[in-house]
Amino acid sequence: MAWRAALRSKAVISGLLSCSSHGRLCASPTFITQRNNSTSPKIKVDYDQTTGVAVMHMQSPPVNSLSLDFLTELCISLEKLEMDKGCRGLIITSNQPKVFSAGLDILEMYGKSPEHCGEFWKVVQEMWLKLYGSNMVTIAAISGSSPAGGCLLSLTCDYRIMADNPRYTIGLNETQLGIVAPFWFKETMVNTVGHRNTEVALQLGLLYKPAEALKIGLVDQLVPEDQVFTVATQTMTKWLTIPEHARQITKSMMRNPTIDKLRTNRDADIQNFVSFITKESIQKSLRMYMEMLKQRKA
Amino acid sequence: MAWRAALRSKAVISGLLSCSSHGRLCASPTFITQRNNSTSPKIKVDYDQTTGVAVMHMQSPPVNSLSLDFLTELCISLEKLEMDKGCRGLIITSNQPKVFSAGLDILEMYGKSPEHCGEFWKVVQEMWLKLYGSNMVTIAAISGSSPAGGCLLSLTCDYRIMADNPRYTIGLNETQLGIVAPFWFKETMVNTVGHRNTEVALQLGLLYKPAEALKIGLVDQLVPEDQVFTVATQTMTKWLTIPEHARQITKSMMRNPTIDKLRTNRDADIQNFVSFITKESIQKSLRMYMEMLKQRKA
Amino acid sequence: MAWRAALRSKAVISGLLSCSSHGRLCASPTFITQRNNSTSPKIKVDYDQTTGVAVMHMQSPPVNSLSLDFLTELCISLEKLEMDKGCRGLIITSNQPKVFSAGLDILEMYGKSPEHCGEFWKVVQEMWLKLYGSNMVTIAAISGSSPAGGCLLSLTCDYRIMADNPRYTIGLNETQLGIVAPFWFKETMVNTVGHRNTEVALQLGLLYKPAEALKIGLVDQLVPEDQVFTVATQTMTKWLTIPEHARQITKSMMRNPTIDKLRTNRDADIQNFVSFITKESIQKSLRMYMEMLKQRKA
Repeated sequence: MAWRAALRSKAVISGLLSCSSHGRLCASPTFITQRNNSTSPKIKVDYDQTTGVAVMHMQSPPVNSLSLDFLTELCISLEKLEMDKGCRGLIITSNQPKVFSAGLDILEMYGKSPEHCGEFWKVVQEMWLKLYGSNMVTIAAISGSSPAGGCLLSLTCDYRIMADNPRYTIGLNETQLGIVAPFWFKETMVNTVGHRNTEVALQLGLLYKPAEALKIGLVDQLVPEDQVFTVATQTMTKWLTIPEHARQITKSMMRNPTIDKLRTNRDADIQNFVSFITKESIQKSLRMYMEMLKQRKA
Repeated sequence: MAWRAALRSKAVISGLLSCSSHGRLCASPTFITQRNNSTSPKIKVDYDQTTGVAVMHMQSPPVNSLSLDFLTELCISLEKLEMDKGCRGLIITSNQPKVFSAGLDILEMYGKSPEHCGEFWKVVQEMWLKLYGSNMVTIAAISGSSPAGGCLLSLTCDYRIMADNPRYTIGLNETQLGIVAPFWFKETMVNTVGHRNTEVALQLGLLYKPAEALKIGLVDQLVPEDQVFTVATQTMTKWLTIPEHARQITKSMMRNPTIDKLRTNRDADIQNFVSFITKESIQKSLRMYMEMLKQRKA
Repeated sequence: MAWRAALRSKAVISGLLSCSSHGRLCASPTFITQRNNSTSPKIKVDYDQTTGVAVMHMQSPPVNSLSLDFLTELCISLEKLEMDKGCRGLIITSNQPKVFSAGLDILEMYGKSPEHCGEFWKVVQEMWLKLYGSNMVTIAAISGSSPAGGCLLSLTCDYRIMADNPRYTIGLNETQLGIVAPFWFKETMVNTVGHRNTEVALQLGLLYKPAEALKIGLVDQLVPEDQVFTVATQTMTKWLTIPEHARQITKSMMRNPTIDKLRTNRDADIQNFVSFITKESIQKSLRMYMEMLKQRKA
């Protein structure tokens, strides 16, 4: 079992939710405001009308944290691509070195009002709903580490190609921070690696090295680091030869039961998240985690 | 992942639904009529009362297409065997060289009235319901290729032994033809190889070589081509040592949730199939596919 | 497939439900009475308040049969530990040589009144409900064979470490005795090894050697026989570093759907068991099995 190896490795206690700024500025409300005013796009979309393939480059330094702004931008881009009938495939990748995405931005959950937390969670749901149910062929070109929400982002895709570098890890490691992955994170993982692997991975908040991730099926293919994008493009070409309508209906048939569970429970799920994350004990966990991140930086 | 290998191989685009006649006669209504008048049995049943084991030899040239006649004959034979309390085991195999069954007969779906399509689909359901829920021990002796409906037929059995010949393939490749495998095909496959393997296999319409099929659990055992039937017989002997009543109840417990879903939705499922298959775009796909088959013959 | 190996091995027909006394006394009502009066504990609990880890040593000669008394004692111990907030981990192991637990005690089901059978089944349910849903980290240190109910006991734990001795076997082999594993045994196994492995294992009542059990995921780790307990202790230490509250909620999320199915159907499940086990044909199977055990002893 790959998670036994993962449990032994130090990876378990590294990586996790992310902090969109460098450690020292993490808790600064001023910084947040500046960030909101930022106009440089956090995601660059290249869409090639000839091939019908769009590429989303995540480019939000330092670690592509999934902030409210980032996710909003992601959802808007997705909606545009989805509505363009010519766009049939989407490759998601990162322009940041060593990281695909470090996951949900803690700053959106720490010291924030219930309203803000609720608004944030809604866009996390939206991202998942749009991607897991996308009509496009979606491929994650995982060019670096991909913990927590970054792993979820990968799991929504149809195919996952990861850089074969043992320094990188991937996994839903929320438990390590004292946070619980919600049922739809869980079901997405069960649909990918099965019930038992998920039970262990989520209980322990495991992060897997690429070889371990491949073994349990958390990623589909490992390639040398400099070939991740090329192989993603080649794979996309193969997937696009499949009759489109039949493939889309088949995808829906496989994924809609899970999607419907969230769709019919969005408000309750938001309520659940907000009341959990605003608990004093959880806020304390988040603060300790951010301080740990700062110390690592220093 | 075996489906990565399958995706790379050319197998993906070969094989598929079948055509009960040789290419040139495919679209000929006259031929259909002749076929309906045929009195030679498409299935030969050998039942050994000493052992309690029946063998169904599929012998409908050239490729054991699952036509309305073929399936009707299959269902009648099944019902007889099921009602004979002495018959405890069933081996399904093919007398045609190189093929187990090439799947549903396109001629039953192409250029036919909605009524005919509905009648055909009903007997496809009936075959699945009878076999997936059979009280007998059922073993598929897969002596050749087994795409689409042929794969489904194998999946209904309790155990699958396949000829270890890399020229043969097996899989639910309907998507390749623009057709969607219905939910009960999907669930039968999920029950056998899990959710993720099914998601990829059905989206891409993958056909697996024997070694790949074994790897994901689509078949249970590979043996040299000339030993498929012998090993099936030996395996049957072992299975028949198990206390029968407990084994039957256990089998029901595992399979009834899936069976019940179709049983309570048969009419809707027929409606769904008929309205899909009679669409102009799907009929066009079927015609193109048959022309492709003809060209290959020529 | 490991169950193919298991099917070939002789293990299939050995082991099974157990008999709490030595063969010759099995059917003696006198003995039963004596047993009920026994005051020596069948389970020794060592609880180390420093580490927060309790160890349950099963010590009911000869084979830790899960009798009414044994299970009652187990449930009481579990309840005490669960209520002690300081107790965070539980290791279950056996003090009997060569066996973890031989499973449900046939004497509680053979020649007994429906009332007795019902009372017995209720405590079997209770054991499963308490363990599968425990807030503690639970680890099975499987120091010997573990058929039927012994396997179920292991499957309720969070992690299974087994002695790497090919003489030992583990599995839900009820079918071999003509008995049907109930739906919650089945679901616990599906949650651990998946649908297809469960379908074959339960239909055939397979017992797996350690290497085969590891291969399908029925156990998580094999270690030399004399290190089972040490490794269990080390593993526990790692699991206890995980933030507790998040781990517990995650565990519930994974297991509650299965637990709820039994919780809302306990009476029907008892009725079902009682009417099945008191059937003349099943009682006959049990008698034959006990006679087979006696002959083996002699």
